[in-house]
Amino acid sequence: MTPRLSLIGSGNVATHLGKALTAVQVPVQQVLSRNAVQGKALSDTIGADFTTDFSQLHPETELCILAVSDDAVATVAAQLPKLSCLLVHTSGAVPMQQLATYGARIGVFYPLQTFSKDRTVDFAQLPVCIESAQENDLPLLESLARRLSPKCYQVDSEQRKMLHLAAVFVNNFTNHMYQIGAELLAEARLPMDLLHPLMEETAQKAQTGLPKDWQTGPARRGDERVLKGHEQLLSEHPDFQKIYTLVSQSILRSSSHE
Amino acid sequence: MTPRLSLIGSGNVATHLGKALTAVQVPVQQVLSRNAVQGKALSDTIGADFTTDFSQLHPETELCILAVSDDAVATVAAQLPKLSCLLVHTSGAVPMQQLATYGARIGVFYPLQTFSKDRTVDFAQLPVCIESAQENDLPLLESLARRLSPKCYQVDSEQRKMLHLAAVFVNNFTNHMYQIGAELLAEARLPMDLLHPLMEETAQKAQTGLPKDWQTGPARRGDERVLKGHEQLLSEHPDFQKIYTLVSQSILRSSSHE
Repeated sequence: MTPRLSLIGSGNVATHLGKALTAVQVPVQQVLSRNAVQGKALSDTIGADFTTDFSQLHPETELCILAVSDDAVATVAAQLPKLSCLLVHTSGAVPMQQLATYGARIGVFYPLQTFSKDRTVDFAQLPVCIESAQENDLPLLESLARRLSPKCYQVDSEQRKMLHLAAVFVNNFTNHMYQIGAELLAEARLPMDLLHPLMEETAQKAQTGLPKDWQTGPARRGDERVLKGHEQLLSEHPDFQKIYTLVSQSILRSSSHE
Repeated sequence: MTPRLSLIGSGNVATHLGKALTAVQVPVQQVLSRNAVQGKALSDTIGADFTTDFSQLHPETELCILAVSDDAVATVAAQLPKLSCLLVHTSGAVPMQQLATYGARIGVFYPLQTFSKDRTVDFAQLPVCIESAQENDLPLLESLARRLSPKCYQVDSEQRKMLHLAAVFVNNFTNHMYQIGAELLAEARLPMDLLHPLMEETAQKAQTGLPKDWQTGPARRGDERVLKGHEQLLSEHPDFQKIYTLVSQSILRSSSHE
């Protein structure tokens, strides 16, 4: 079952999702975006109609995917014509009910990944988290998700809130740890690529079993001498020093609960 | 040039390194370890002699690799017979000078990776950081490193200290971020493998260019509403909540320096 699709937005998520759907032979009929340049570019790429006017949403649309920034979800939903089609947003952080002004047929289609311009995203192994207000809208979302990836999960708004928070730790905060590593290496006049195999192996390991079971290092061992030495090394980076102390304490405490 | 090699230790580093050297046709002649069971097992695997008695270090050894825990480096070095061979340790955290009681021919051979039992380590792309007290010992270490990997770096003890600290952020602290993610998902009754593609992509991305340039998320955007919401969600995890606030502030501050 291939629904008639409209896609609202032309940012990273809309672009990656629009291309991925097209690639698995799910055509997007229409792109709607306030950004005429990006929106036109996306619609040209995927062979869809284009408009900047949300009131022009195709009346025959069966599924409308709202892939705009978190802040814009409720505003854009309120501007849409009241059609009979299912409206879903793609955000990890926004409750489904922010679409409620649109009507009763609402839901979420959340592909769990970090999307950046200039990075190809492989949807084939990507988890897609779906939710719908009306149970009979779920099969449509599930069949669409499964066209992209075998990993489709039904996740309600409460769970998705926690999932999004976990994703912040795993993506944004991990990236900040990488950044701190990069800055320390630059200070020591060493190239960042020294750490690439370690970043790789750390991510690989943690995917087998529980991350906790792979923990090593001075905090895990409770090696006070090394911990103190590291804190001293960070004396000119108060932000990094505080993070060092706090994360080490958290590792120590979670090891001692074993 | 293949030196006559002795290897002290039978833990993770000694085992992985001993096997990797053997695999690239650099035979280890002798294994020395206080742990008779593990030491015997390692020496059998790689076809080396074995002794638990450090005074029995082969007199014809040209290079002795001390792959023991950080705390044991100085103690074991002090127990070795004063031979003419080069003695190196394999630790990121220990200054070369902790080998000084052994003699003048000392150095460091530090393969930068996290070694765990039951995980195969691919040395082929692994950075090996070398240092020697005497400059004419460097070619021996360099040629050995290059047998294992094309990535050989000369790194002095001061630089290595910083490199090890950076590795703690990139490995131990990143793994703790994964662990927090896993615990939050478990609370929401969601499987951890939901986050695997995100962990993977985060590590991949950060290897192209600077991690900082890839940063996204509520802290990067300065999205106070989401930040407050996440802190509230963590109210029953004071450790995680403090980490959340501190790392978010650090991301915010480092973004505002742009």
